[in-house]
Amino acid sequence: MKSYSPEQIWEMDKNHFIHPYTDFATFKDEGSQVVTGAKGTSITDSSGKSYLDGIAGLWCVNIGHGREEMANAIADQVMQMEYFNPFGHSTNTPGSILAAKLAELAPGDLNHVFYTCGGSTAIDSTIRLIHFYNNVRGKPDKKKIISRNDAYHGSTYVAANLTGIHATKYSFDRIANDWINHVSAANLYRRPLGAENLSEAEYTQFLVNEFENRIIQLGADSVAAFIAEPIMGAGGVLVAPEGYHKAMKAICEKYDILYIADEVVTGFGRLGHFFASKAIYDMQPDIIISAKGITSGYIPLGAAIISEKIYQVISKPQCEGGLFSMGFTYTGHPVACSAALKNIEIMERENICEHVQQVGAYFQEQICSLADLPIVGDCRGSHLMMGVEFVADKTNKTPFPMEAEISKRLFEHCAKLGLIVRPIGNIIVMSPPLTISREESDFATKTFRTSIEKTMDDLKRDGFL
Amino acid sequence: MKSYSPEQIWEMDKNHFIHPYTDFATFKDEGSQVVTGAKGTSITDSSGKSYLDGIAGLWCVNIGHGREEMANAIADQVMQMEYFNPFGHSTNTPGSILAAKLAELAPGDLNHVFYTCGGSTAIDSTIRLIHFYNNVRGKPDKKKIISRNDAYHGSTYVAANLTGIHATKYSFDRIANDWINHVSAANLYRRPLGAENLSEAEYTQFLVNEFENRIIQLGADSVAAFIAEPIMGAGGVLVAPEGYHKAMKAICEKYDILYIADEVVTGFGRLGHFFASKAIYDMQPDIIISAKGITSGYIPLGAAIISEKIYQVISKPQCEGGLFSMGFTYTGHPVACSAALKNIEIMERENICEHVQQVGAYFQEQICSLADLPIVGDCRGSHLMMGVEFVADKTNKTPFPMEAEISKRLFEHCAKLGLIVRPIGNIIVMSPPLTISREESDFATKTFRTSIEKTMDDLKRDGFL
Repeated sequence: MKSYSPEQIWEMDKNHFIHPYTDFATFKDEGSQVVTGAKGTSITDSSGKSYLDGIAGLWCVNIGHGREEMANAIADQVMQMEYFNPFGHSTNTPGSILAAKLAELAPGDLNHVFYTCGGSTAIDSTIRLIHFYNNVRGKPDKKKIISRNDAYHGSTYVAANLTGIHATKYSFDRIANDWINHVSAANLYRRPLGAENLSEAEYTQFLVNEFENRIIQLGADSVAAFIAEPIMGAGGVLVAPEGYHKAMKAICEKYDILYIADEVVTGFGRLGHFFASKAIYDMQPDIIISAKGITSGYIPLGAAIISEKIYQVISKPQCEGGLFSMGFTYTGHPVACSAALKNIEIMERENICEHVQQVGAYFQEQICSLADLPIVGDCRGSHLMMGVEFVADKTNKTPFPMEAEISKRLFEHCAKLGLIVRPIGNIIVMSPPLTISREESDFATKTFRTSIEKTMDDLKRDGFL
Repeated sequence: MKSYSPEQIWEMDKNHFIHPYTDFATFKDEGSQVVTGAKGTSITDSSGKSYLDGIAGLWCVNIGHGREEMANAIADQVMQMEYFNPFGHSTNTPGSILAAKLAELAPGDLNHVFYTCGGSTAIDSTIRLIHFYNNVRGKPDKKKIISRNDAYHGSTYVAANLTGIHATKYSFDRIANDWINHVSAANLYRRPLGAENLSEAEYTQFLVNEFENRIIQLGADSVAAFIAEPIMGAGGVLVAPEGYHKAMKAICEKYDILYIADEVVTGFGRLGHFFASKAIYDMQPDIIISAKGITSGYIPLGAAIISEKIYQVISKPQCEGGLFSMGFTYTGHPVACSAALKNIEIMERENICEHVQQVGAYFQEQICSLADLPIVGDCRGSHLMMGVEFVADKTNKTPFPMEAEISKRLFEHCAKLGLIVRPIGNIIVMSPPLTISREESDFATKTFRTSIEKTMDDLKRDGFL
């Protein structure tokens, strides 16, 4: 690559690269931080400063950055066979081996893999596939999808509208309002009216009742699927009350509704297992969506892993010459699949899930110890997927006003001290590489605590506390 | 990677890998051809047989397979910084440099790049972005998108419905019928009633009139954009009549409608230029969609390159805290962008566009020389994007019945003789790597001619001729 000065890169970025989730109120003046290097649990920017990557790129670099084994596996596959299309009766070696491996890792009879290039397209294709499935089995009116408020499911037009995060909708249009529906998030910290004082089990029942009532209201014969993240990610790291997923699945089964588990974030070890649905929540979904950790973000890849029951329907021969006419040029891309296979090999060889069960539990405990601070409203999550919600008043859970820029201040203090966290509204998310050590966990928690204290000083100075 | 026998791979594929465009009438018995190796213009399957890759993977491996320089550039980037998110005010080096380079390569003021993981998501995001654009500039009712019959625009829910190929719709649902519209394809070989005997210029006017009438019928204030491939790809390699794109653009300008040029196939040298719209058709689009050739398929990448005019609107600061809340985890993926930069460097250094202007013109001429054969109805395309349509009767352009399996027979004869072509209905497509030599062009044409002759013998034997 031709080499450019940091200023030139900064300029090229600012003038030509349209970023997701840009705040254009400041972007054209400030431009971007240029992340130039990454190794293990750290990243480096163009000023030469290093940071502990507390968010694993974007909850995805599970095995850590810059693994030579990954570079070699990827380069080897490029030299062996970088691409040929997998359409119809044509396939490639890594795509085939990975599909069999995913079938082995996924719970129950989730044995068939539809590959895409990321989470959004895996979700989008799954919805197309489910509609196809209900057409083929003679239920053309069974098409509605129930999602949840505060859910994040991606950024294609359909995936963005399954997403239930209000702040992502500003100036963007809705699509398919006739078949996309949302029920309440499972939010133990901020519950809906009437659920404030329930026990966890009662709150689960409250949410399950809402879901069942919605199905009845929509007409069970019109509802095709329910989609949910085991723990909500971008919506604020929301852990459901006990028994929630299993109980929601039971309702799905009662009404012949498919359960789609969006494990883009929770999958591949973040909670200590390859997939969380069955291992942690004792719930067998009909479809698991995977992306991010599947390659640890080294090469774009997504996958929908579907049940035998669904496959038997969609793989029925159609009319003469009729094809399963869905899929992408880069479905089952050999280089992406090779990266995924090497990633899984590393995870298994280094017992990364077991590591997360131990160090992740410790990390969770450490993050939760921040609860004593006066502006920390809630510490939540599980293992290496943690969120901390900040409030101006703990008793009433009053959020800070937007002008207080609470998460921006926290982000900046953390960055100054060498830690990258992710600000989302009044919440700070941490989702480090799964290889994080106990010492790095300590550093993260200590630095975060110091940053919160410094932020409190600033807030006092500026009249917000 | 653990090693498996060809039979094991074949089995894993059949049992676990859901392919795009599978014919399930035969798949479960036949399984897939396992493509195991690729080098230069050739691929190899698990039986050890080699083929000239007459379709460049899927009109994408433009610089040819298995380039060591690409493997090195990709591995180097993996080691340097395989991934960190590009959200908000964060960026990476290759994503920034590539955005500037694309702005330089794209015509006119197409200076801003929104990255995705492939063509489908680039199209899908572009539609979301255009709706956003019209909301921001106070035209919330200007949302309809006009596409064309026989167009191919991808496989997200929205992209699949912009697609106008009838055969892709079987058992799949439609979406957004209220704002997705289709006008006629520009098909010189099979024209609509009333246009059969027009000159090219008159046929262009005929299509332009249909387009303008549709706009008036829908209401110009409700139409946001027109989307078209410079040469239709999967729809059958349809070349528009002279002056078509420029005249359609003039209508777009008249009614404040954006022109989206889908250059996923035509871009990156296939027609002898980095982009075809301006260089060949003297038409300045508002948005160019790129994918495939942008990395020569080595790593998944897509991009929408948008005009200054659009950027100035979408980059206006929104409400307090409002973000441009659209984008993917793998937007501007550093490894994909590094692959694209090396791909462009190779194309420029080896003068691949000039090579295509010469050898591609020769290839076109050679393919067109097949027109003397009695079942060849039409030879069309340009440079290294060619299609041949087969007919039972040349005078009346009568297609073969489906049972004749014309393109399957042709595909199989070509494969036996060491040439991969792409069957689409009654059409055979050829889109070889851009590095194809004159000798390989001769081999392809000669082999194709022999396969057509053999197919004719079979058709006679089986009573179809």
